[in-house]
Parts: sequence; C-alpha cells; structure tokens
Amino acid sequence: MKKFITNKFILSNKTAESLYEKYGKDLPIIDYHCHINPKDIFEDKKYDNITQMWLYGDHYKWRIMRACGVEEKYITGDASDHDKFIKYAESLEKAIGNPLHHWSHLELKKYFDFDGILKSSTAENVWDLTCKKIEKDGMSVRKIIEASNVEVICTTDDPIDELMWHEKIMEDEKISYKVLPAWRPDKAVNIENTEFLSYIKKLEESSDIKIQNIDSLEKALKSRMKYFAVRGCKVSDHGLEYVPYKEAKVEEVDEIFNKAMMGNQITDEEVEKYKTHLMNFFAREYSELGWIMQLHYGCERNINYEGYKSLGPDTGYDCILGYVSSKKLSAFLNKASMNGSLPKTIIYSLNPTDNAIIDTIIGGFMEGGVAGKIQHGSAWWFNDHKQGMEEQMISLASRGVLGQFIGMLTDSRSFLSYTRHDYFRRILCNLIGQWVESGEYPEDEELLEKIIKGICHDNAAEYFGF
Amino acid sequence: MKKFITNKFILSNKTAESLYEKYGKDLPIIDYHCHINPKDIFEDKKYDNITQMWLYGDHYKWRIMRACGVEEKYITGDASDHDKFIKYAESLEKAIGNPLHHWSHLELKKYFDFDGILKSSTAENVWDLTCKKIEKDGMSVRKIIEASNVEVICTTDDPIDELMWHEKIMEDEKISYKVLPAWRPDKAVNIENTEFLSYIKKLEESSDIKIQNIDSLEKALKSRMKYFAVRGCKVSDHGLEYVPYKEAKVEEVDEIFNKAMMGNQITDEEVEKYKTHLMNFFAREYSELGWIMQLHYGCERNINYEGYKSLGPDTGYDCILGYVSSKKLSAFLNKASMNGSLPKTIIYSLNPTDNAIIDTIIGGFMEGGVAGKIQHGSAWWFNDHKQGMEEQMISLASRGVLGQFIGMLTDSRSFLSYTRHDYFRRILCNLIGQWVESGEYPEDEELLEKIIKGICHDNAAEYFGF
Amino acid sequence: MKKFITNKFILSNKTAESLYEKYGKDLPIIDYHCHINPKDIFEDKKYDNITQMWLYGDHYKWRIMRACGVEEKYITGDASDHDKFIKYAESLEKAIGNPLHHWSHLELKKYFDFDGILKSSTAENVWDLTCKKIEKDGMSVRKIIEASNVEVICTTDDPIDELMWHEKIMEDEKISYKVLPAWRPDKAVNIENTEFLSYIKKLEESSDIKIQNIDSLEKALKSRMKYFAVRGCKVSDHGLEYVPYKEAKVEEVDEIFNKAMMGNQITDEEVEKYKTHLMNFFAREYSELGWIMQLHYGCERNINYEGYKSLGPDTGYDCILGYVSSKKLSAFLNKASMNGSLPKTIIYSLNPTDNAIIDTIIGGFMEGGVAGKIQHGSAWWFNDHKQGMEEQMISLASRGVLGQFIGMLTDSRSFLSYTRHDYFRRILCNLIGQWVESGEYPEDEELLEKIIKGICHDNAAEYFGF
Repeated sequence: MKKFITNKFILSNKTAESLYEKYGKDLPIIDYHCHINPKDIFEDKKYDNITQMWLYGDHYKWRIMRACGVEEKYITGDASDHDKFIKYAESLEKAIGNPLHHWSHLELKKYFDFDGILKSSTAENVWDLTCKKIEKDGMSVRKIIEASNVEVICTTDDPIDELMWHEKIMEDEKISYKVLPAWRPDKAVNIENTEFLSYIKKLEESSDIKIQNIDSLEKALKSRMKYFAVRGCKVSDHGLEYVPYKEAKVEEVDEIFNKAMMGNQITDEEVEKYKTHLMNFFAREYSELGWIMQLHYGCERNINYEGYKSLGPDTGYDCILGYVSSKKLSAFLNKASMNGSLPKTIIYSLNPTDNAIIDTIIGGFMEGGVAGKIQHGSAWWFNDHKQGMEEQMISLASRGVLGQFIGMLTDSRSFLSYTRHDYFRRILCNLIGQWVESGEYPEDEELLEKIIKGICHDNAAEYFGF
Repeated sequence: MKKFITNKFILSNKTAESLYEKYGKDLPIIDYHCHINPKDIFEDKKYDNITQMWLYGDHYKWRIMRACGVEEKYITGDASDHDKFIKYAESLEKAIGNPLHHWSHLELKKYFDFDGILKSSTAENVWDLTCKKIEKDGMSVRKIIEASNVEVICTTDDPIDELMWHEKIMEDEKISYKVLPAWRPDKAVNIENTEFLSYIKKLEESSDIKIQNIDSLEKALKSRMKYFAVRGCKVSDHGLEYVPYKEAKVEEVDEIFNKAMMGNQITDEEVEKYKTHLMNFFAREYSELGWIMQLHYGCERNINYEGYKSLGPDTGYDCILGYVSSKKLSAFLNKASMNGSLPKTIIYSLNPTDNAIIDTIIGGFMEGGVAGKIQHGSAWWFNDHKQGMEEQMISLASRGVLGQFIGMLTDSRSFLSYTRHDYFRRILCNLIGQWVESGEYPEDEELLEKIIKGICHDNAAEYFGF
Repeated sequence: MKKFITNKFILSNKTAESLYEKYGKDLPIIDYHCHINPKDIFEDKKYDNITQMWLYGDHYKWRIMRACGVEEKYITGDASDHDKFIKYAESLEKAIGNPLHHWSHLELKKYFDFDGILKSSTAENVWDLTCKKIEKDGMSVRKIIEASNVEVICTTDDPIDELMWHEKIMEDEKISYKVLPAWRPDKAVNIENTEFLSYIKKLEESSDIKIQNIDSLEKALKSRMKYFAVRGCKVSDHGLEYVPYKEAKVEEVDEIFNKAMMGNQITDEEVEKYKTHLMNFFAREYSELGWIMQLHYGCERNINYEGYKSLGPDTGYDCILGYVSSKKLSAFLNKASMNGSLPKTIIYSLNPTDNAIIDTIIGGFMEGGVAGKIQHGSAWWFNDHKQGMEEQMISLASRGVLGQFIGMLTDSRSFLSYTRHDYFRRILCNLIGQWVESGEYPEDEELLEKIIKGICHDNAAEYFGF
C-alpha cells in the first residue's frame, strides 16, 4: 500500500522514481500556453484566502461542485469564501480519480505544507491552516511564480491588446522570468459572431488602419502582429470548433466579408470560406515571422444557454465536440506546405479519439532541419489527467517520435497550477519507467536522460527559442 | 497464479478484496433497466433445463455460437435442448476474454454450485448436473430472484401495455421486491416505421383518445403516462439510432404527422423534425412527472436482413453505429434546460468512443440541489465487459464525479443475469482498490465506504426514489 | 528490471513465457498479406548492406527520421548508405515506445546476432558488424525466408499483372514454401483517378476483351480473376478510403462509366455509385470462386502534396482518416449476404476507434458451417504495435470470439519483417498469460494450446485453405 501524495506520487517503480528525481523534478518550467493575467503578475496580486486562489474563475472546480448538486450560490454566487471552500471540499471527496483531486492535494502540499486529506471532516481545519499561511507568508502571485521555478510564461492576448502589462513586466528588473504575449485572433476569425462588427471597429482603432476589405483587414492584422512581435511574441493560438477548409477566390471572400460588415446574415459555407482564407493568411504570416501556430479544436462552447446567459463564457458549460474532420486539417496543413509557408505547428483536439489521427497527420508534414516541426500538443483540458496524458503519449510514441515531444503547458487560469507540470512529469517518468522495467526500452542512462530532459524542458526551449 | 472463478475473481489486490467483501458484495440490487417479462415473475415460470434459461432468447450467446460456425439449427432452430447446450459449451471455450465466458461460469457457480470449467469435454457432465439441480430444487423465476437479493426491478413496457402483470405482482403479498413498469414509447417516435400507422390506432384504443394531430397524440401519450405513473412507473427509456435534433414549428410537425398518417412517404429531415418535437414533449412531461429519462443511442439494428427476416428483431443482428452527433445531444438537453424542463437523464451510447463526449456534456447540465442530475449510464450491451466498464468508469472519473455514479443495471432478458451486478461490483472495487494501493486515492475507510456503497446501491436509491 | 530484447521480450509473466515457448514460437508463418516483390524471391536478391534492407522503400522508417528533422537527402536522397544508416540510428534512439524501435532490435538479433542497443554512439559498430555479416553469409532473400520458417506468402498484384514471377517460383523446386498472388483491383475501382482511362486500356489488352461498358468491364475482370485463380490466388484485397455504398441501376452505372471514359468529370455521388456497383460485383465473384475478400479502409493518402509530387505514393505521406461510415459497411455486407454471395471477408480500418464497430458488425454476418467467416483483421499499419494489437485483440475478445481470430500478417515491403509475426505472438501470449495468471481464464493447458496455435497458425490455415 502506497501512501497518498508523497514524493513517489504516481511513480510506480524504481526506474520511474529515479528518472523523476534525477532528470524530471528540478527542471524549470516553460509554460508556453496559459490564461493568466499579466496584470496580476505586475501588480503582484495578493490573496485573502484559498477560495480566491482556487474557486474564483476556475470552471473545472465549478463543474465538480455542480455535479455534486451544490447550489450555484456556493459556486459563483454570493456565499462567503469560507462556505464555498467547505462545499468544494465536500464535493472533492467524491471526485475519486479526477485530476482535481490530485491537483488540489499537490497544491496543498507544495504551497501550504499540508499533506493530509481534504474532505468534509477536515475542511474547517484546512481552511484555517491555509488562511494562516496566506496571512503569515503574504502569499502573492510573484512569490508563487518564484517558488515554482518558472522560466517562461506565455499569456493569451487579443490582437487589439496594447500589452501594457507585458511592457511594464519587461521593464521590472525584479522579474527574472519571461512573461510574453501570445497572439489569439479568434475574434477576427469568428465572422459569424454578433460582436464581429464591433470587433473590427476596435481593430481599426488599434491598428490605425481603415478596414474595408480583406486586404485592409490583413494589413491591420499584420500591423498588430508586428506590434506583438516587437514585444516578444513568438506563439499564436487559435480556438476553433473544427479546423475549417473550403477554398474560395479572394474576391468571393471579400464579398463575404462585406456582407457580414453590412450586418447581413452569412451562410455556414461562407463562414467556412472566410475562415479558411484567414487561417491560410495567418499560417503564411506566422511562417514569415518564425512564430509557432497553435490549433485548438474539437470543442463545443456554451452548450447550456441558461448557464452561459447568466455567467458568460468559460464558466463550465463547454464540452468535447464529436465532429470528424481529419480531411480539413490535412488539407489546411497541405495548403500551407505547398506555399512553402507551413510554420511550426502544435495541434490539440479536445476529442481524445483524434489522438491517432493527429499523430499520423503530423508525421506527414515533418521537414528536414526542424526536429519535431509539427507537434501533437499535450493532452488538453478535459484530457489533462493521468489517463488522458498516458493515452496521448502512448499514441504519439507508437505512431511517431515521443523523444521530440515538447511536453506540458498549464492552459490554466490559476497561479497555483504550476503543479500540473509536476503532475505531467511524474506521469511521463512513470510511463517510461514501466517500459524500461518491463524490458521494452533499454535501461540506458544516457538515452533516458536526454529523453526525459527533452520532454520536460529542453525540446520546448529549442522549439520556441524564447 | 490465481484460480478461475473464486471469491477473489477480478479482485487483483487486497484493498479491492476488502472493499468488495465489506461494502460491495451484500448490497441489494436495484435493477432499474432490464427486459425481463413480468408475466414470468407472476407465474413463477419453471425451467426444464439450463438451455431454456440460457439459450432461449439470449442473442449474446447466439452471436458467439454463430462466430464459431455453429449451424443455426443448434442456435435458434429445432435441435434438442441438450444438443444446443453442447454446442454452446464448445463455442464458449474459444471465447476467451468475452464476458459470456465470465458470466456463464459465475452463473454456474452461483445457481448450480459448479466451479469447474465448462468446455467441450465437460459439457455432458455439466448438462447432467444442471438438469438434476433444476429438477431437485424446482428452480423457478421467483426462487432465482429471491436468491439474488433484488430490491427493485424495472421492466421495459410499451405505452399501450395494460400492465396487468405488474398489477397482479403488486397485489401478491409473497413478492417482497418491487417490480415496476418503465415507459418505452419507441413505436410512437419511430414515424418512419411501416407499423407506425397501426401502432397509432392501437394507441387510440388504449388511451381512448382520437388521434388526429400532434396535439391529440400528445394527449393520448399523456393519458398513458398517467396510467403508468399510477402503477409505479418512474423511469422512461428511448432506443434511438442517434439523438435527433432539428427544430420545426408545431404546424409543420402536424403536417408531417398527417402526411405519415395518410401513408405518404416522409423525408429523413421530416422524420428528424417529428422526432425532435416528440422528444422535446417527452422531456417536458418527464420533468413534470419527476420521471427519469433514459436515452440509449448509437445502435444500428437488423443489419443482416436475411437474419432479421427469418428471426425478427433482437436476434443478434445489431451493431454499434459510428455516427457522430454530439451537437444534437447537447442541443436537445439545452432546449429542455431552457424550458426549465430538463428531467433527470441517463445517457448511454453504444459507441464507446462517445464516452469522453458524454462525460463532458453531462457536466454542462448539472444543477444545484440534485446530485448527479445528468448521468453517464453504465457500459451498455456490447460494452458491458471488464474493458468496457473500466473505460466508462475511468472516463467518468477523469472528467466528472465517479462518486455520484448510479451504477449497474442488467439490461438483460434472462433471470440468471443478476450476476452481472456482482461482476460490475468486482470490477468497480478492483479499479478503486488499484487506485488506493498505488497511492492515487487515500486509504480512507470512511470515504471509500461511502463511494462503494453509493455506486453499488445508495446513489441509485436516492436518484430514483422508488 | 528486465533486460531489453531477450527471449522473454514482451512476456511479462510465467504463463506468457510458457505459452509462447510451447505453442507460439515455432509455428510456421502464413503471411497472407504483404507487399514484397516476387521477382526478388525468384532472383534471390542479394544486399550489400543493411541500409538496402532497411531504408530502401520503408516509409515507416522515413517518417521517424523526418520527425527528427533529418534532411531528406539522408532519407530518400543521394547520401551514402552508410550515412543514411547513421542518421536512422540517431533518430531511432528517440523513438521510445515506437514499434520500429522494437522491430529494428528484433531484426538485429534474429538476422545479425546483435543484442546490444542501436543508437548514435553504437551506430558505426553496428554498421560494420552488419556489413561483415552480410558479406560473410551472402545474405539473400531466399536465405532470409528460409531462416524465418515461412509456409505461405501472398503478394499484392494488379489484375493486369502477368504473374510471371509467381509462375517461375512455382516451377522452382528449390522453393518449398508457397508464393501466391493476391488480387488487388484498386485501379479498376478508382474511377476518379486521372490514370483510370489508361488503366482500362491496359486491362483490355491484358484480358483481350474490348471494354465498352460495365458488362464488358466485368467480363474482362472475370477473365483476369480466372487467370489469377489458376495461378493459386485465393485472396483479394481492396484499398479504400472508406467502404462505399450508394446503390444505382446498372444503366446509370453504365452512363457513369461512359462519362468517365469520355474524359468527363464525374461527381462524388457518381463515383460512389460506380464503386458500389463494382464492389458488389467483386463480392459476388469472390463468393463464387471461394476467395477471401480483404477490405482495408480508413486511410487518407498523399496528404502532403509536395512530398507526393517529389517521391510518389507510399513514401510516408499518408494518415488515418477520420470518417465515420459504419452504415455503408454494414449495408455492403448485407447486400452481398442477401444475394447469398457474401464471401469470407477480413475487415481492417486504419482508424483504431473503429475497432468496436467492426467487432460488432462482423458478429452480425457470421454463418453456420464456417468458423469465423467474417474477420476483424489484425491491427494494421499505424496500429501494428503493442498498444494497437492489444486494443484490437481485447476489443475482439470482448465483443466476439478471439479463439477464431486468424491472426497476423506482415503487410510489409521488407523481407526482414517476419519478426513482426514473432512480435505479434509475444503480445498475444502476454495478453492471454495475464488473463490466466489473474484468474480471468482458467489455466487449462488443452484449451490454451488450441487457442494459441489457432491464432498463430491453425485458424489461418483452415480459413484460407492454401
């Protein structure tokens, strides 16, 4: 019987323990994709209690509580921070096998020296203990980041963002790690959204370019990309329901754009043509700039309209989309490749049944001179648990080259989430340890060191070149 | 080396054994979904031999025999019961890893005290042994149910059923467990079927309401729902190829209905509009009545027309349907939710690749005050084996709250199938035992007791409130 | 800790070791589907070095190298054989968990007595060692086949092939194993391809039948089938993107055919109608001839146009296709079954998420008198690794009868690939050994012997009846 949450957590064999201790544990974190607010870093945001750290804005936790029948008042409503925490603890004890159960305990251990069990009967004690610790240590965002051995943070930013906080951070000599913007132009892509028109207006202002057609839209976006690049941006990100692909002449795309700008309804096919054109444009620009392109797809958002209406997006009402579109993804990559403008690309699908498809598609677009040019991104969102990560890595290993994998990111909205890197590294070392112990890979220290360090840090360092 | 079929069957570690022994094994069975005939219960049907118990009507077993090249005469034909049993035994020995191999041996042990191996060379002995036991003990349906510690049985019933046997059972004081009807209105939904017209006529008679349009159809169905409710019905069930969703005005649905009633051909789109309307209606009514809605989808039926023609439905000619429609499922739930009329719902897909999708969709429709309101149903039909159950539970645990799961049902046509609950409980305890032993969940007796008892019995008891 | 690549490779328990040693290891190989060239066998092709054996034509290896950023010059270009080998060794060390890592080491051990590790630092030594061995032993195709205990080889041949090499082999008394042609009429099916017209011309010449319509096309194909049958052909093979099914009258198919022959564009629907007609025709003929029908689908080919343009097909630019069409597959089998002309059929999908679907579809078309008539083919191409094979076998076992499985084929272009049979057998014995050791199947020597020998050899021998 192994105790819960010890140094050996997840590590089921000696080789795994040794790989983790020697190579995995102490490497710095390159968090190339997350959703934290740079303002919080610059202003070194403080917290009054653990509820503010854990439950403000974390829809992962909200969903667990809702599944346990907790009233919304204790989730996003006006109950006290104390009561919300108690309700979370009550819910958590039933969430056996859920990564939140692991993460919460890993965070309690790392940041609060608590290594007991959080459950109904201990919730009050844990509340007190964390309150005291927060008060005593003056726990703040910067302290958390420093305690977490972070090398690089890439935030997620809209093209019209002025990146003021990134600039301030860059000028702050007390901040030793990099906090870089990442380009997320979803609002310029989602022509079907009601806010598209007003967004284009804002983009006009931000770029100081009059947007009258596709050509001027692209000019405006290019100008903003330049603005981002100067401020250290190297990574883009696209949140897509699915990867679109339906070619059209630029004249037709111009008409679609104008139709939308006049406030007219456009068809699904027109939406796809517009998006295809824009995605092709972005691929070209990223390739030119040497940026990395991230594609996140396979997600249906805001499926519960009542929930969305009362709380807005990113509040726990999204799901995995069952939509099969592997031909569009390959066609999109092929188009860029034919134009000689396929950037380094990281592909994430929220649907785990796409793993095998992605692993074989990326293998078709690799290129001499760039190791692991097209990447299958780490298990994402509803899949970033032991099963999901193992499935992603075993599939990648079986159909490609695991040793070139750029590894983990947090994708998180919470500063305590750096433990997810630790979680990932344990799962990785455990998997490889099992292979070695069972004689499926040689016990070759030199090779294993390279592989573990590569996936935990070195591959990403080389790939992104921050 | 572990012996086959002992008390420790499936239980691979000490914690698993202990959880099963202490909490799982002895709980009564709430069988909230099965296909057994209440007449057999009331009349306390007797059997002459094991072939009548095992091979009359069990298409799971027929498929195994067909896959072994057994002639149809020994499966559904006129061969003797003895010869059929021998052929089944011969087939079974090749079905390594198939749940039938496990179930058959569990049943032989539980109901016939046989703990050897059923195979070609022992088949005659087992035949004799079971014949003697059946003769000696006068094995009957009621005796089997009593020996199986059953608390509730929900049958599967058509809206026009008079529920005579349920009434008789209710009046029979010697029956201590509940035998409740469940509402399965597929024939009223499947407007594309040739028997739709004649079915509507029967529904008219049964409800004593003239059905001339959607409104009167709904009235007739409501009247039958009331009839069912009075007789203890709390659960509905829908067998769907996929969850339909295409909205239409009621006038249009009226036209579609009339078109079908005139015997005219209706299009696929019209079928979907009609079904959507009716499913929305049912959700509303179930919500009103406090019934649970079960959705079974992802199945293509009667794929082998020759087989179907000669033997009818449910004879082993169905398969998993590869059809991806997660947007329709979420749209359907959303519609009900927007109307404030989303009942407690249990979702089952026959396609195991839908697991992750379902687990994230249900998380988007949970509601304060009702623990586990939307459920991912236990691994169904072609998935109710060790692999299928583990996949369903690991996915649910990783993406939701396993501790709120309402657990197993038999879905069976055979009275010996209560061992499937035992099978499920062993698999559950084994899985959780592994997590505890490997330090992925704490060895906390209090929490584990609650979780195991909850999934094996208590959650269902609370959820259904029979 | 287990050493890498020993006699116990993959065998994780005593029962597995024993099953493999006693029943699995020494059985001859029936390689009923591969892509090797019969000319090489007849001419007893010699090799100068291991690069010629390994890297000439093996796009599996090319993909691994590309994923590691190796320049194309070292893959398919004009670099020396020595340098190509070194680059492959460098790539391989990162491919932890990839079957190539296993296969390469199994081949080095079996054919070159090398049981060290191939990696950057040993690559030069291994190069020397293999060169010496090749020179000393005069390693040739026939010697490799003889050393591999091969009983039957089925090649893959176009209808217009004269099968000259097969004839010569048949006449060569020194060749004791069978080398039989297999019928692969893809070029006659793929009406949408630009080379379709020219192919039909070649088919006219080859069959000496003027092809003016569907009827004469079928006559020509029948004449070629007879030609193949006389030369020992018993197996056909179809490479399909997906299994097509859209019925049309023969007159309409005639029109489509004529349209295509006139060089006119035909629609996707017309393509599907033509293909459906032809596939129905083939099923009928195979049934008549007693041939086995193989269906390979779920593959998108040549996704990287630049790569395809410069290197042609089968050069590493294919991927798994995410396309869900289970209804077409069942409809196609049903059509043949209704006509009484469903041949023995083996179904392979490149998409592993189709496993469960296939396992349930085949169960719907089994037939008395033919054990395992419809087969789920062994894990194919991007899935022929430990994970893929285990998934295929566990799914088949859970939903059908594993004991009737006809087992492994190489599907290979390299003569060293016979080790894949050894790899498969180890994985099979390991899986079954685990079930026995954990008490999920009885330790019954008699049954286990039958099952292992059946899957490794005997079932295929009976099924194909070569």
